[in-house]
Amino acid sequence: MMLKSAIQLAEKLADVSGKIICQSFRQPYLQTETKSNEVSSIVTIADQKAESAMVELISLEAPQDGIIREEGDNISSESGLYWVLDPIDGTAAFTKGLPIFGTLIGLVDLNKNTTILGIVNQPILKERWLGVTEEVTRLNHQPLINVYAKETNNKLQDACLTSTTPLMFITERQKAIATQLQQICKRTAFGGDCYNYVSLASGWSAMPMVILESDLKYYDFCALIPIIEGTGGVITDWQGQSLNATSTEILAASNPVLHQQALAVISG
Amino acid sequence: MMLKSAIQLAEKLADVSGKIICQSFRQPYLQTETKSNEVSSIVTIADQKAESAMVELISLEAPQDGIIREEGDNISSESGLYWVLDPIDGTAAFTKGLPIFGTLIGLVDLNKNTTILGIVNQPILKERWLGVTEEVTRLNHQPLINVYAKETNNKLQDACLTSTTPLMFITERQKAIATQLQQICKRTAFGGDCYNYVSLASGWSAMPMVILESDLKYYDFCALIPIIEGTGGVITDWQGQSLNATSTEILAASNPVLHQQALAVISG
Repeated sequence: MMLKSAIQLAEKLADVSGKIICQSFRQPYLQTETKSNEVSSIVTIADQKAESAMVELISLEAPQDGIIREEGDNISSESGLYWVLDPIDGTAAFTKGLPIFGTLIGLVDLNKNTTILGIVNQPILKERWLGVTEEVTRLNHQPLINVYAKETNNKLQDACLTSTTPLMFITERQKAIATQLQQICKRTAFGGDCYNYVSLASGWSAMPMVILESDLKYYDFCALIPIIEGTGGVITDWQGQSLNATSTEILAASNPVLHQQALAVISG
Repeated sequence: MMLKSAIQLAEKLADVSGKIICQSFRQPYLQTETKSNEVSSIVTIADQKAESAMVELISLEAPQDGIIREEGDNISSESGLYWVLDPIDGTAAFTKGLPIFGTLIGLVDLNKNTTILGIVNQPILKERWLGVTEEVTRLNHQPLINVYAKETNNKLQDACLTSTTPLMFITERQKAIATQLQQICKRTAFGGDCYNYVSLASGWSAMPMVILESDLKYYDFCALIPIIEGTGGVITDWQGQSLNATSTEILAASNPVLHQQALAVISG
């Protein structure tokens, strides 16, 4: 599959999922289920419908590709390419009626272990980020500038530390690392999900950002990798290694200097 | 001051503060200060400018009224009326570039201990809630319907529990109560600030809501009281008492039934 075709399909996936999600936003009594084996993890009918629509479109336009997804079983690939889908990242925000969730669409080549592209689509605010490996990330087709990317004097003491929820730090080691970084950074802000990462990529925050998360799945971060890297940000695991399908601990920063300092805290 | 004039002035305050805040949104390197005596509480230049503009307008149009505000000293009242101002509630979201902060404008009569009106203004999304005591709350002039208000069968087990951050629970008693409610409710969602309350008032959430917060100041919740009550929600302190200028622990719910159940958990 050519890159241009892949981008076109990714955009179509964002279009079809976005339409479905907008119909369910701010709808009371929305049908929800608690996932059987995950405490207080909620899946809405919007998640399921949006994912089904994307899966159907892929099976029509790229039947040779596989699918790794949040709400259903994975589909194997003949091409080595996998679409990695999370219809609603930020379900808590979505269920509260806050427009800071996103649809995550990643495309990876698992034979070569490379991420090809990633989309974050916010259908209510009509914001769509597209990251393509080795290209500048775009928001609604406009190239983004992360003004913090080239900073060499940033200190953790000047940064905003972000995690979606403190409940994602499960082990004693994770809790200790999170607490230590919270004490060093200028400010800690919970909430945000994928919106924290696109804010980092967009250089929107009033101060440089460090994002520390754990207990994530591949579909939670795959699409974010080219989006962050495409504006000079850094995203790795807590050991500084490249992310892959089995990673669960994520560290992102507005620039390499902050990323190195956070890694130093993590490794003690 | 007649109610109609008060509403007009409140709307003007939202207009002038909104313009200033929009200019600073998603601006990197935004000037910030850490408040001297509050760890990791950040005030931005936008907070200060927006508040100054509101104070100036009140001194011109209602010089007899007092002001209780976040960023500066209070101003005493000749009329008994006080404007209660928080230019940016949700500074963390604002500094990250997330449009889920709000400007809170309340008007109270401290002689009679009554709240007259409250506005939450979200200038980026152009959403403005107006609550007037004993009237139906309006969003952009349209009356709101909180569909959960009249539910009599709701259980905490069906509700979404929300708190802006777990760090707001400081004492062992507060932490124990928060943890207990988190374990009972269907879902816990952090983040959101004032946006949680307007979502509750608007009946937007996929399931009924309970909001548990502590360590709040008067300007954090004053404007929210008529907005919540004006669509059938309940907002009190953790003992079920009416809120006043010295309250710090807030409990809000989509309806009286859920509120009573949460009070029962709190009182043990």
